[in-house]
Amino acid sequence: MSNQSFLSLYSLFLGEASFELVSALKLVIQSSMESYEHGETQFQQLQSICASVCEKMTDSKIAHRAQKIESERERTERWGIYRDKRLERERDVLHGEWNSLNRSSLSNGTLPAAGSSSGSGPGVSLDSSINLDQGDPALFEEYWRKAGERFNVAIGGGELMSYFSNLNSMCWFLLPELDVSVRRLHRLIGNAATEGRHVVVGTGSTQLLQAVLYALSSGDSPDQEPLSVVCAAPYYSCYPEVTGILRSGLYKWEGDARSFDKDGPYIELVTSPNNPDGSIRGPVVNRGDGKVVYDLAYYWPQYTAITHQADHDIMLFTFSKSTGHAGSRIGWAILKDREVARKMIKFMEVTSIGVSKEAQFRASKILGAICDGYESLSPEVLPESFFEYSKRLMIKRWGKLEEAVKLGGGIFSLPKFSREYCLFSTEFTETRPAFAWLKCKEELKDAEGLLRAHKVLARGGSKFGVDPTFVRVSMLSREDVFDAFLERLSAIKGGIMSNGSHA
Amino acid sequence: MSNQSFLSLYSLFLGEASFELVSALKLVIQSSMESYEHGETQFQQLQSICASVCEKMTDSKIAHRAQKIESERERTERWGIYRDKRLERERDVLHGEWNSLNRSSLSNGTLPAAGSSSGSGPGVSLDSSINLDQGDPALFEEYWRKAGERFNVAIGGGELMSYFSNLNSMCWFLLPELDVSVRRLHRLIGNAATEGRHVVVGTGSTQLLQAVLYALSSGDSPDQEPLSVVCAAPYYSCYPEVTGILRSGLYKWEGDARSFDKDGPYIELVTSPNNPDGSIRGPVVNRGDGKVVYDLAYYWPQYTAITHQADHDIMLFTFSKSTGHAGSRIGWAILKDREVARKMIKFMEVTSIGVSKEAQFRASKILGAICDGYESLSPEVLPESFFEYSKRLMIKRWGKLEEAVKLGGGIFSLPKFSREYCLFSTEFTETRPAFAWLKCKEELKDAEGLLRAHKVLARGGSKFGVDPTFVRVSMLSREDVFDAFLERLSAIKGGIMSNGSHA
Repeated sequence: MSNQSFLSLYSLFLGEASFELVSALKLVIQSSMESYEHGETQFQQLQSICASVCEKMTDSKIAHRAQKIESERERTERWGIYRDKRLERERDVLHGEWNSLNRSSLSNGTLPAAGSSSGSGPGVSLDSSINLDQGDPALFEEYWRKAGERFNVAIGGGELMSYFSNLNSMCWFLLPELDVSVRRLHRLIGNAATEGRHVVVGTGSTQLLQAVLYALSSGDSPDQEPLSVVCAAPYYSCYPEVTGILRSGLYKWEGDARSFDKDGPYIELVTSPNNPDGSIRGPVVNRGDGKVVYDLAYYWPQYTAITHQADHDIMLFTFSKSTGHAGSRIGWAILKDREVARKMIKFMEVTSIGVSKEAQFRASKILGAICDGYESLSPEVLPESFFEYSKRLMIKRWGKLEEAVKLGGGIFSLPKFSREYCLFSTEFTETRPAFAWLKCKEELKDAEGLLRAHKVLARGGSKFGVDPTFVRVSMLSREDVFDAFLERLSAIKGGIMSNGSHA
Repeated sequence: MSNQSFLSLYSLFLGEASFELVSALKLVIQSSMESYEHGETQFQQLQSICASVCEKMTDSKIAHRAQKIESERERTERWGIYRDKRLERERDVLHGEWNSLNRSSLSNGTLPAAGSSSGSGPGVSLDSSINLDQGDPALFEEYWRKAGERFNVAIGGGELMSYFSNLNSMCWFLLPELDVSVRRLHRLIGNAATEGRHVVVGTGSTQLLQAVLYALSSGDSPDQEPLSVVCAAPYYSCYPEVTGILRSGLYKWEGDARSFDKDGPYIELVTSPNNPDGSIRGPVVNRGDGKVVYDLAYYWPQYTAITHQADHDIMLFTFSKSTGHAGSRIGWAILKDREVARKMIKFMEVTSIGVSKEAQFRASKILGAICDGYESLSPEVLPESFFEYSKRLMIKRWGKLEEAVKLGGGIFSLPKFSREYCLFSTEFTETRPAFAWLKCKEELKDAEGLLRAHKVLARGGSKFGVDPTFVRVSMLSREDVFDAFLERLSAIKGGIMSNGSHA
């Protein structure tokens, strides 16, 4: 038997049989060969048998591979995801026709974020509108698409069915594993104290905000005056709407905290870093009869330096802004006071009988796997952990934006941020907010209109309680959308220079 | 070589090699055997080699199996679910110590559903409380646990991340696949018209109810009187709480529709089949200036005959009651009027920026796979489809309950239901509601207290706007919990007869 035939046979076996099996077979064949060493004819016969075996092996191996591929395909089908197809369709749907964006306005009159998904969507054409009105965190999608199976979840048809998640906890709808992951993540990042605190989950921090307002305003007296709710301008544009939508008798939006002068108890909302302008904030009213609610949605290392472990009575966080998983609608509150927690839980119970368990489960998995990555001694699957990756992206975008604004020759300006030492990344860093808070020259008056004339949709200052020379632009869009935005921002200068109509 | 050795070798190979491989090997060995047929010594040598190969094969096979088990374990770990472990813990947490139920009361003072999960939880001990206050649909869990992989979902770390689901739809947060599945299911069951209607998804039908109230009451005038919201008693106990929690200036709970006599516009809620009493209902106020909202949570074949395709202006349905997936918090509205849909969408946008995509995705998958099962020509994986299975269970439970009530000698009575022809199952059937609406003898006065004295927690009539001789008991608990309930129900008669204290 020629060495070559034997090696071919051997290597074919290796493909589908264990090492032990191959060794055993080798033994049988070698013994046969030894007995035949004196007879040339028999040896040739065996050689030809081996050659025919080799041929059959090859067929067998191809069949085996085909079977493997087929069974893999079946498995994928069984799991029912057709992931690629679905992703493609999701992209198609999300991007749609860029031009159709102007038609399909949302019910509140604003337009959806065109750049709401990363990846290879249709390009940004010259005459299409760019929507940077919402803060859809498409920027982070690529990371998660490549981040591997550690971040995947699988849920069986019979799992997570009950209303209840934990009968031993006051927050009976909070999945115990989400409670654990949230506390782990805050310990890892060092951005909020959780020990001895109550964690309450909500359908996004939006529902939690309503739950807080309810918890702080629902007293025993049915005739009480509505409690004043204030926030220093520029404030998050959704606060007035959330507070006012049902014309509640419990609480009432009273606008800018800086001009608030009513007597009696009040609630002050403090967003830090602030949406829209990225500033680091504290309360401004500072009276004994006020309650302060800290919205810390953006207090994460990719947006700002973690300068201290926040330890306020009421703190709100959200999955959307921490990792970019906006579609899950998961937020959490960290609370010192048991009675506030109890009332918030009651609000969630009455208005939505808890919070989606699928979303909670996925959030717990993703936040937990982030912690695993940082805490494990073995090297990461990805070259970068999420917070380093996203911080690098934010720094890059802000560099580009600052460059474009500078080249604009003073048409727009940006807020200044100081450098602070970040306890998490152990280096000095500037705030790199999720939104650019652009201010146009006073004489240009309408920053939103100015951008809109160049087919960039963004949210004007008046929605944030300040003058319309300000405009908020999302920094979290898809890469090509962001680049197109920079191009148009640069073109504004040209436009004004050439026809002088805005000057 | 003995036949036995050869067969052992052959069968061992079969375990890990393909048929083609085994055939080829057989050929090699047989050829060797033929050449050796004249020499007894050599034959014995080969036989001993084969025996040793067999031994090695066995070791190899064990090693191979161990490797398979290990790789399966690793796969499970990668998917991060540790399904069995998690289920066990979920059960442990849910069932907890039965005795601890009395301690861990929910924030609203009611107790959680002890029987909220099926399967092998701790048994119902003699002195433990049975909670049948909520309608947690544990009854259906076993079906879904056994229903196979068609109903599983897998979600990658980078999927479903955007706020947006469909920019081409007014309901921008509704996953297109859920829209499709909902319409398919209604077509299959024939319980609601969907053609040309708007489908709006919500965080359970609870959020949708609030969205409806908002949509019907939010006018242009800030000084309008709150719109009256009514429902015929006995009404769903959550309606007053949901309507009243924020003391909205837009709408106001006005109680029993039958005694409603205020002038002006109003909203009437019609639950059919009704929660708590299972009756088939229509509106009772019937004035031109009223809007009717149909809560059809229980209009599914397991609970009642599908007598017609409902075709009202506003209809609400929920995943919780249709399939038992209460933890997902998915409900949907079917709406004729575009403006109502638009305002409801706005409500969802302002109060929760849409609805969890994970939950929507899972609901779309499960509802879709139910339709696939009914529509495919190939036999079902399970012997029964979900609606047949769950109907059979409901009939069985109601049979047992009616028997127990009859044996109780008139202490309790149940509502009577007429037999109707079900267009879906094409047979005559009675309503078998998700709740038993028990009435105790007038002189016993407090039905809830009577059950509580026998450690059965249920919801008394006063919460439903009627007298306390009524009590609502969940029919959807775990099997052992339901059986224990029947035992205690029977014991009530004995208790009263022996000490006469209630008579």
